[in-house]
Amino acid sequence: MPYVNIRITREGGTTAEQKAALIGGVTDLLRDVLDKNPATTFVVIDEVELENWGVGGLPVADYRRTQAPPA
Amino acid sequence: MPYVNIRITREGGTTAEQKAALIGGVTDLLRDVLDKNPATTFVVIDEVELENWGVGGLPVADYRRTQAPPA
Amino acid sequence: MPYVNIRITREGGTTAEQKAALIGGVTDLLRDVLDKNPATTFVVIDEVELENWGVGGLPVADYRRTQAPPA
Amino acid sequence: MPYVNIRITREGGTTAEQKAALIGGVTDLLRDVLDKNPATTFVVIDEVELENWGVGGLPVADYRRTQAPPA
Amino acid sequence: MPYVNIRITREGGTTAEQKAALIGGVTDLLRDVLDKNPATTFVVIDEVELENWGVGGLPVADYRRTQAPPA
Amino acid sequence: MPYVNIRITREGGTTAEQKAALIGGVTDLLRDVLDKNPATTFVVIDEVELENWGVGGLPVADYRRTQAPPA
Repeated sequence: MPYVNIRITREGGTTAEQKAALIGGVTDLLRDVLDKNPATTFVVIDEVELENWGVGGLPVADYRRTQAPPA
Repeated sequence: MPYVNIRITREGGTTAEQKAALIGGVTDLLRDVLDKNPATTFVVIDEVELENWGVGGLPVADYRRTQAPPA
Repeated sequence: MPYVNIRITREGGTTAEQKAALIGGVTDLLRDVLDKNPATTFVVIDEVELENWGVGGLPVADYRRTQAPPA
Repeated sequence: MPYVNIRITREGGTTAEQKAALIGGVTDLLRDVLDKNPATTFVVIDEVELENWGVGGLPVADYRRTQAPPA
Repeated sequence: MPYVNIRITREGGTTAEQKAALIGGVTDLLRDVLDKNPATTFVVIDEVELENWGVGGLPVADYRRTQAPPA
Repeated sequence: MPYVNIRITREGGTTAEQKAALIGGVTDLLRDVLDKNPATTFVVIDEVELENWGVGGLPVADYRRTQAPPA
């Protein structure tokens, strides 16, 4: 009876179809690799505002600017 | 000093009174079973959008349709 | 289909019976307050080493010493 | 930069190869469905003792006994 | 490659600058104390509605009223 | 009343002193940036086995080998 929590940044374009593909894909993976029963596999997706997610010591939007190639 | 995280689907009708009942009930349970001090017991409720919660490999709304009895 | 995560300090004496009482009690609470189905209610207990839990800016064992009444 | 937490019961036989298959599979899924960069995708697996996981109001081992077919 | 989750009550006034200060501060701390690489340190901030957070067996707003000094 | 969860790989050498430094540092940060009360700030550190943490689609140990500079 696995519980899977997927946390991603909320970026405007994640559709219900994409979320369904994540839910189905993770559930299949747990069945295939560990023989877990899909009926008792929970998948919960959290969408996190960009300003609430940090990497490299910076909020994501600022971090991405540091990674952009120079013009 | 327990920390309890309750994750439920957001379905429109969870009232502040129901949330207070969950908070009080879990805190009492930890005091009664483990003698935990209510003053340092945290309870955090997360309400998750239906399309972000999956079970049986499907988003909850789709899953429920598969469980409905035939007419 | 709730998911509940209870995090407590590991203090040597939490028995399987006490854990079962927490699992049963939280599941009953969610059924009574929100009409959630016990069959799809998950409860996961995490026991955390004392030196890994902090409050008041101190590991729990140190914190407790600051709270002890003077002799 | 997704963060994925997979929580499963610890049942003695989960191998390093199976864990690697979960890590690879979830990372591929997030790349395929949402174009997420594998280099900044974290996957963390938590293995939870059977007596610490409940469903149906019972610890997992007790719950399974209620689900077993009669002889 | 640490993952840090900061959960706070949402109280209207947390600015993007304050969030950036939390992200930078935690990342620096992990580098200074454990030599963790900022490039693979994630910090995720969750803001929780007041009525969804409980302490002392009460929702936060009610709890604060019990702590207020008498007039 | 913040709750902070720090998840790091377990690599043998994290001492109680380092954990206390993380607990104290995060608590100070929340007080300095958001005026949060240390007495109601919880910090919980989870140490995760190397084979249970993945990045870049690989368990950490394998990932590090791909990052090592050539001799």
